[in-house]
Amino acid sequence: MKITTTLLALCIITASTITIAQPKPEDQIKFRQSGMMFMRWNMGIIKSQVIKNPQSYNKESVIKSANTIAAIANSGIESLFNTESATGKGWKDTLVKPEYFEQREEVEKYIKSFTEQANKLVTTANTGNPGLIKKQFAELLDACKACHKKFRSKKK
Amino acid sequence: MKITTTLLALCIITASTITIAQPKPEDQIKFRQSGMMFMRWNMGIIKSQVIKNPQSYNKESVIKSANTIAAIANSGIESLFNTESATGKGWKDTLVKPEYFEQREEVEKYIKSFTEQANKLVTTANTGNPGLIKKQFAELLDACKACHKKFRSKKK
Repeated sequence: MKITTTLLALCIITASTITIAQPKPEDQIKFRQSGMMFMRWNMGIIKSQVIKNPQSYNKESVIKSANTIAAIANSGIESLFNTESATGKGWKDTLVKPEYFEQREEVEKYIKSFTEQANKLVTTANTGNPGLIKKQFAELLDACKACHKKFRSKKK
Repeated sequence: MKITTTLLALCIITASTITIAQPKPEDQIKFRQSGMMFMRWNMGIIKSQVIKNPQSYNKESVIKSANTIAAIANSGIESLFNTESATGKGWKDTLVKPEYFEQREEVEKYIKSFTEQANKLVTTANTGNPGLIKKQFAELLDACKACHKKFRSKKK
């Protein structure tokens, strides 16, 4: 019985090790910086169409961008922040603050809020109402900024 | 009448200029490299779960990654390849070949095939059948490789 239990424990450890196998720290940083940057491009597209140049508003284009932001938000990008990747360089030096790795429960709340706002933006984009999209875009941007303010250093 | 036509033409030019306003070349390269890199991370997740470590297969995780790849494929990433961005540096020097900018119709076919395979991967991921996903993953990878072979230089 003891052996069986030990074997079972070993299997669980092995299985969970495989599941959480992660890219090496510099790749984690590169991947997460890539996800952030691609969201930024899509945020820019939406901003351009509902704030800066409303006459260029195109429903399909905004839907595509909202879908992309939401897919990245839901991709599990937060798994790319292992403790080993707290410092280091991906495409560039990481800007994440040490607090991020010390306040995981707090971080979770910010990620949850950001993901919810991103999902809402998809729903709103599909209404085709630029006024509603503009409002929801602001909500999402607030969620981005709140997390950046708390957990991202100023750009060097 | 002539003045009206000229004004109309001006308006159309202005509107289309606004619509096709693009990031500067180095940002286009950075954004497209980011999209490619984030797809690569997600391709790695699926590969790990249906090929390398099938015991780690997790339906929800594969769906998330397939959704992300498809969203990026459908995001209009191909608009980030303006002629002015044919050479230059984003996160790193662009690897795109000059042929890409000379054979737009040919490029379209590759992009269409890639996007179709990415969309099919979402459908397949939702079946929860690892065998089918593995097969569709190979189809998508072939579409990636075909385009890279034709339009991407070897890594430096």
